[in-house]
Amino acid sequence: MSIPKSHPRYVSLKTRDTIVDGVKKGITSTHGLIAHGRGEAFDYLIKEKTQKFALEAIEAAACLLLSAKEPLISVNGNVAALCPKEIVSLAKLIPAKIEVNIFHTRKNRRFFVSQKSEGFFRKSKKRGIAIAAYLAKNGAKEVLMPKKPLIKYIESNRRFCNPQGIAKADVVFVPLEDGDRCQALRKMGKKVITVDLNPMSRTSKAATITIVDNIKRALPILIKTIKRYKKLNKNKLKNKIKRYNNKKILKESLQYISKSLS
Amino acid sequence: MSIPKSHPRYVSLKTRDTIVDGVKKGITSTHGLIAHGRGEAFDYLIKEKTQKFALEAIEAAACLLLSAKEPLISVNGNVAALCPKEIVSLAKLIPAKIEVNIFHTRKNRRFFVSQKSEGFFRKSKKRGIAIAAYLAKNGAKEVLMPKKPLIKYIESNRRFCNPQGIAKADVVFVPLEDGDRCQALRKMGKKVITVDLNPMSRTSKAATITIVDNIKRALPILIKTIKRYKKLNKNKLKNKIKRYNNKKILKESLQYISKSLS
Repeated sequence: MSIPKSHPRYVSLKTRDTIVDGVKKGITSTHGLIAHGRGEAFDYLIKEKTQKFALEAIEAAACLLLSAKEPLISVNGNVAALCPKEIVSLAKLIPAKIEVNIFHTRKNRRFFVSQKSEGFFRKSKKRGIAIAAYLAKNGAKEVLMPKKPLIKYIESNRRFCNPQGIAKADVVFVPLEDGDRCQALRKMGKKVITVDLNPMSRTSKAATITIVDNIKRALPILIKTIKRYKKLNKNKLKNKIKRYNNKKILKESLQYISKSLS
Repeated sequence: MSIPKSHPRYVSLKTRDTIVDGVKKGITSTHGLIAHGRGEAFDYLIKEKTQKFALEAIEAAACLLLSAKEPLISVNGNVAALCPKEIVSLAKLIPAKIEVNIFHTRKNRRFFVSQKSEGFFRKSKKRGIAIAAYLAKNGAKEVLMPKKPLIKYIESNRRFCNPQGIAKADVVFVPLEDGDRCQALRKMGKKVITVDLNPMSRTSKAATITIVDNIKRALPILIKTIKRYKKLNKNKLKNKIKRYNNKKILKESLQYISKSLS
């Protein structure tokens, strides 16, 4: 669909087309489209702008990623479809590893368990492979695939991850995450940074840092902020992280939405 | 995906599966999935329950449908996937005609213009036909198809409707409607009843009666209410309609959401 640039909601509608394209590319799942719709509704409630509470969270996220020993970026089908270039830039900048994270079916699980190579150059219809291939096309040098059921406290196939990736990471940046998995990563002692437009979601509440913003707007700002903070020493980064309070940020975002409704 | 009945959001998750099934059946569009997700977010904000403002709107809607001369039910891919049986029951009960309403592509438009019969028994991959066939399978005796560009004030292919259906109707029940089309129907002097979980949408604002509720919960209540009011004479129905104030209802729903956030 061609959308005139003058349309008041041009960016939102273009983004919608991008995510629908993701389905056609075999990257995004149909359930991912519904999740995108939920995000759209909450984005509408924060006026489709990066608000102060998101900027504060982005600053803290930049510091946490820069002070991590084993930072990792966990990418699902929606993230890959919406921001492939930004994810690759971020990974190179921090630097951090990238791992594919999907709610894979049983069939896929067997595939992941039995495969011998990372195999993301293979032509395959499997969604995980499609995501990795798409990131590679956008400049990623390495993309880890989920391999072993190493995420504890979780029953579903989401417990699969890579022993060299999420399993080892101390800080996981996992935008648009599922609630169960976010809680499980926290229980494993990892610090979790997420991007979630719903400040009431389990992911938002469980994460160490929640950026309540549209990922399309948040990632470029996160990249800029990391470039600015790269020179800071570890102590300065730690002090900035210490001052951050995720509960306060979530409360502020709820108050903002509540005010804008009445 | 099998969801345990004990899950706190069981109904919402089952509904999500139903709409995804709609895509597999060729009834629901990918953009329809995103729209469903937006609805889910707003449903969450009204606590996934039919609130007082929705019940009031349902009462008025029942009266308006019963007092209409040419009532019509306009059905899109999401409505058909979610509530086929309820739509058919409603049409028989009022009684009202059913018309398929989709944002059909140019290709489909030519199809609709040139087709000679209603043709919904033909095996076809076209979404409009699939919707009609699905309603027929669920008991509909007749389903009208969009045929001529008779909806004024609208540029897109949504202006197509059936001369014996929407074009003639005085009251249109059109749940989960697009803003442009709702406004256009109102400008043509028709009374419009909608179901929309977003009280701020253009559809919600333009409609004569807006039921701010999940269609899966609202339709059974609407059917019950119509059964109860069927015996009332026209004057009593008119008095009930007169007392209804859509602006007030929308304001109340916004206040409810705002309060529940803070």
